Amino acid sequence: MTYTLVLLRHGESEWNALNLFTGWVDVRLTDKGVAEGKRAGELLAEHGILPDIVYTSLLRRAISTANNALDACDRHWIPVVRDWRLNERHYGALQGKNKTEIKEQYGNDQFMLWRRSYDTPPPPIEVDSEYSQAGDPRYAGVEVPRTECLKDVVARMVPYWEDTIAADVRSGKTVLVAAHGNSLRALVKHLENISDEEISELNIPTGIPLKYELDENLRPIGKGEYLDPEAAAAGAAAVANQGGK
Amino acid sequence: MTYTLVLLRHGESEWNALNLFTGWVDVRLTDKGVAEGKRAGELLAEHGILPDIVYTSLLRRAISTANNALDACDRHWIPVVRDWRLNERHYGALQGKNKTEIKEQYGNDQFMLWRRSYDTPPPPIEVDSEYSQAGDPRYAGVEVPRTECLKDVVARMVPYWEDTIAADVRSGKTVLVAAHGNSLRALVKHLENISDEEISELNIPTGIPLKYELDENLRPIGKGEYLDPEAAAAGAAAVANQGGK
Repeated sequence: MTYTLVLLRHGESEWNALNLFTGWVDVRLTDKGVAEGKRAGELLAEHGILPDIVYTSLLRRAISTANNALDACDRHWIPVVRDWRLNERHYGALQGKNKTEIKEQYGNDQFMLWRRSYDTPPPPIEVDSEYSQAGDPRYAGVEVPRTECLKDVVARMVPYWEDTIAADVRSGKTVLVAAHGNSLRALVKHLENISDEEISELNIPTGIPLKYELDENLRPIGKGEYLDPEAAAAGAAAVANQGGK
Repeated sequence: MTYTLVLLRHGESEWNALNLFTGWVDVRLTDKGVAEGKRAGELLAEHGILPDIVYTSLLRRAISTANNALDACDRHWIPVVRDWRLNERHYGALQGKNKTEIKEQYGNDQFMLWRRSYDTPPPPIEVDSEYSQAGDPRYAGVEVPRTECLKDVVARMVPYWEDTIAADVRSGKTVLVAAHGNSLRALVKHLENISDEEISELNIPTGIPLKYELDENLRPIGKGEYLDPEAAAAGAAAVANQGGK
């Protein structure tokens, strides 16, 4: 018995297009991002990988991407579960800031440390910032972070995988997780047992379904497979180069 | 303690625009239907009626309308429950047929009997019809109907209300039910205790939230309130006149 898990990073958002750090700020998809979601659904249909249940974050760019993808593969009617633990990494005081400007202001080393170090979070956001999520009703009962490093995302994402998503996978359902660059990196780190150092090299492109076959221990059989490998390679390179001019 | 329930009929579908009986056929919204959903969300926001949970049918026109409305009132992140019991009435062999042609072929009396009688279903659809839902994976485990009258819809919708939706209402959540003309008529019949005869006069317009305040027995306090009464009156008249030229 093997299991099927599909990961999908949301399509381009308005702040991706503006080159801003986004984190938990709830921005919309661009037209390109909408098209990416539809294309992801077409790829799922072409490969005959039809989700039985979808998990999303509480952020509109992942929710809309899931809606667009599922509509395109005629699975708009499947059960949906949303949870904050699938949210993007909270980018702290960097939320709303231009990536190139931050790189120029703080230098490339500090910029890359905030973007890709495993355990160095950006400075915390002020609670009264317009880009803080303090008091947002969707996080009622949740201790809303003021900043996160990838290690923090692993600490919330992996238990959610183990306690909740994994049960659906084990039941034989094809599970789609529609989420974000860093919440998906956290999950891939866990699944593929990637070290704290090596995870910095992993970039997940937007809008291309990443399929895993999992064994009975929910360990990947082989590598994850992007359903459009050529576009995925180009997309991953583009993510790696963010903050360049 | 009172409770808030909001009903929303999906916006215009492609088959509404083509004047076809639709039933369980899973057609898309038109651009007008998309706009109706967004407008519904704006009305919810303007009135400060923000859903905590949404129920939808398994049909794309209700699912998309809910997605569009919730996105417009910034509640895209709330929990979603989908169930076939909220589906439109199954229109049997009339599914895919033009309403005006059926009226001309069978006469106005038979036409109105199929559309509005409480307990006379249209002829059953052939299982191998392109418009049958036999074998559709979304109804796995469900005995898919081949035709339904409104009484049949009441028989599946009201128990689902009592067993499932009502618990969320009683917990104090503002519940949104995004569904169809006849599944919502079935629910309103139950809530307002409308007789089998009088329900034929009730027409629910598309895309306008209908708000109920319910007492501790989940009985309406006063009448349901359309959040745009003028548009609702015009919309209900348009529904009543369907099948005219």
